[in-house]
Amino acid sequence: MIFGLETSRDIIAAARAYGAEQGFKPLTVVVLDQGGDLLAAEREDGSSNKRFEIARGKAHGALALGLGSRALMARAEQQPYFVTAAAAAIGGSLVPVPGGVLVRDSGGTLLGAVGISGDTSDNDEAAALAGIASVGLVGQPD
Amino acid sequence: MIFGLETSRDIIAAARAYGAEQGFKPLTVVVLDQGGDLLAAEREDGSSNKRFEIARGKAHGALALGLGSRALMARAEQQPYFVTAAAAAIGGSLVPVPGGVLVRDSGGTLLGAVGISGDTSDNDEAAALAGIASVGLVGQPD
Amino acid sequence: MIFGLETSRDIIAAARAYGAEQGFKPLTVVVLDQGGDLLAAEREDGSSNKRFEIARGKAHGALALGLGSRALMARAEQQPYFVTAAAAAIGGSLVPVPGGVLVRDSGGTLLGAVGISGDTSDNDEAAALAGIASVGLVGQPD
Amino acid sequence: MIFGLETSRDIIAAARAYGAEQGFKPLTVVVLDQGGDLLAAEREDGSSNKRFEIARGKAHGALALGLGSRALMARAEQQPYFVTAAAAAIGGSLVPVPGGVLVRDSGGTLLGAVGISGDTSDNDEAAALAGIASVGLVGQPD
Repeated sequence: MIFGLETSRDIIAAARAYGAEQGFKPLTVVVLDQGGDLLAAEREDGSSNKRFEIARGKAHGALALGLGSRALMARAEQQPYFVTAAAAAIGGSLVPVPGGVLVRDSGGTLLGAVGISGDTSDNDEAAALAGIASVGLVGQPD
Repeated sequence: MIFGLETSRDIIAAARAYGAEQGFKPLTVVVLDQGGDLLAAEREDGSSNKRFEIARGKAHGALALGLGSRALMARAEQQPYFVTAAAAAIGGSLVPVPGGVLVRDSGGTLLGAVGISGDTSDNDEAAALAGIASVGLVGQPD
Repeated sequence: MIFGLETSRDIIAAARAYGAEQGFKPLTVVVLDQGGDLLAAEREDGSSNKRFEIARGKAHGALALGLGSRALMARAEQQPYFVTAAAAAIGGSLVPVPGGVLVRDSGGTLLGAVGISGDTSDNDEAAALAGIASVGLVGQPD
Repeated sequence: MIFGLETSRDIIAAARAYGAEQGFKPLTVVVLDQGGDLLAAEREDGSSNKRFEIARGKAHGALALGLGSRALMARAEQQPYFVTAAAAAIGGSLVPVPGGVLVRDSGGTLLGAVGISGDTSDNDEAAALAGIASVGLVGQPD
C-alpha cells in the first residue's frame, strides 16, 4: 500500500463525513507524509482563515516529536517553555492540542499524520481517528 | 456562487485531469481564497517534497500584488531586487514564475487564485487555466 | 588535544553505546564546537523527524548562555518570558530542558557542547555525560 | 534495505575517503532522509563554520524540487529570481550548486539525499557520488 494522495483523499472524505454526522463545526483537514510535507488538505466553508496552519501544526508537530498532539499537550501543561522552545527550534509549525494523529500501518510503521482543526480539540481528534480507521490504518493520538 | 471548497475541489480535479491528458509530470495544485488562505490542495504521487510551498507561493504572490505570477516573472526579469524584497516583506511566499493564476468571476470580481507546480511553468499555468475554466470562471495568468 | 571531528565521533559512539546499554529509546546526538556550529550528528533509526533540531537546540542554547541546558530549564521555570525571548533573539535554537551539556577540558576551558534528544531529558543528559567522560573531558550539565 | 543511520555512516565514510585520496580540502558531509530531515553529518577539521548549513542546503534543496543541485544551478543561471524565491518559500535551506545528490535504489525509489561542501562544487559532487556508489545505491546529481 502506498500512503499517497488517493489514501489521503479517502481519509479526508471520511473525516469530513464523520464531522457532518456528528454535527461538528466546519473542519479543516490536512494529511502529511512521513517527512511532514503536505499530501492533501481541505478547508470546509466557514472554517476560519488560518485553520490550515493550525491543523498542519498539529500534524507537523506530532511527526517532529514522534507523538500524537495530545501527548504534546500533556507535555505543554507540565513544561510550557519546552513546547514553545521546540516549536521555535523546528521552525514554528507545532500546535500542542489534540487533533494531530500519527498514521501507522498494522505493523506499526509510521506513514504520516493527519491534523484537524475547527471544532473542539477532542472532536477534531475523533474525526481524525475516524478518517484513519476508514482506510484500514491505525491512528496514534498520543 | 460561493468560491469555496466544492469549487476548489472541482478546479483541482479538472487541472489534474488536464495534466494527465497532456502527459505532464505529477502536479501539486493549490487553491487559495481572496485573502491568500488555503481552501484545498493536492500533491500527486511523485511530486517532490516542497511542491506545495512552490505552488502556494505562485498563488499567494499573485494575490499579494494583484497580478498573475507570469507578470511577476516579467517584473523579476526587470527588477529582481523588487521581487526579492517584496517576497521578504510578505513573509516569503511569492514565487515569480508562471503557474499562479488569479480567479475572477465573469464580472471581474476577484475570488482567489490557483497555484500549480510540477511540470514546466508554462504547463503548470495551462493546467491552472483549464481547471478554472472548467467551473465557468475566468483565469488571469498575468 | 583538538576538539574536532574525531573526538566528536568518539563522544557520539560512547553516548549511543550508553543509551543502548541502558535500554533508552533511539537517540539523536549532536556535537557543536565552541562557536555553536556543527561538528557531527547522528540520528538513530526510530528517532523522530525533528530530533536533530531539538538536540541541537539544547547544545546551541547551552553555548549561547554559557550554562548547561538543565540550568536553562531552571531559569525557564522562574522566568519563562526570558527564555522565550532569548530563544527568539538568537534565532530559535534554544531548548531549555536537560540534555545539552557543555564540554570543558580539565583546566576548565570551554571546547563545545553535546546535545541529545530521544528519551527522557534526564536520560538524554546521562548519555551526554557518559559520552563526554569517555574521551577524558568534563561535562557541565547546568 | 533500510536507508537509515548505518547506511548514512557508510556513505559519509566512503565520501570522506574519496576526498582524502583525491587531496580535496576538508569536507562537510550531510545525509538526509527522504523527508529532508538529518540522518547523519560530519564536518572535517578545517572545514569552515557554516559548511554544515551549506551542505544541508544542497541536499535539502535537491529533495524539495526533486532534482540534484546541479540542475538547480542550471535553473538559477537562467532564472535567478526563481531560485531565490523558491528558497524563501521553503524556509531558506536551498543552495543551488553541485554537491547535492539524490539517493535512489536500483528501482529508482527516492531514499534521501547527500550534500557535501568544502572543495569545489564539482569535487563536492564527485565525493557524494562516490559515497553513494559505495553502498550500492544510485546517485542523481542533476
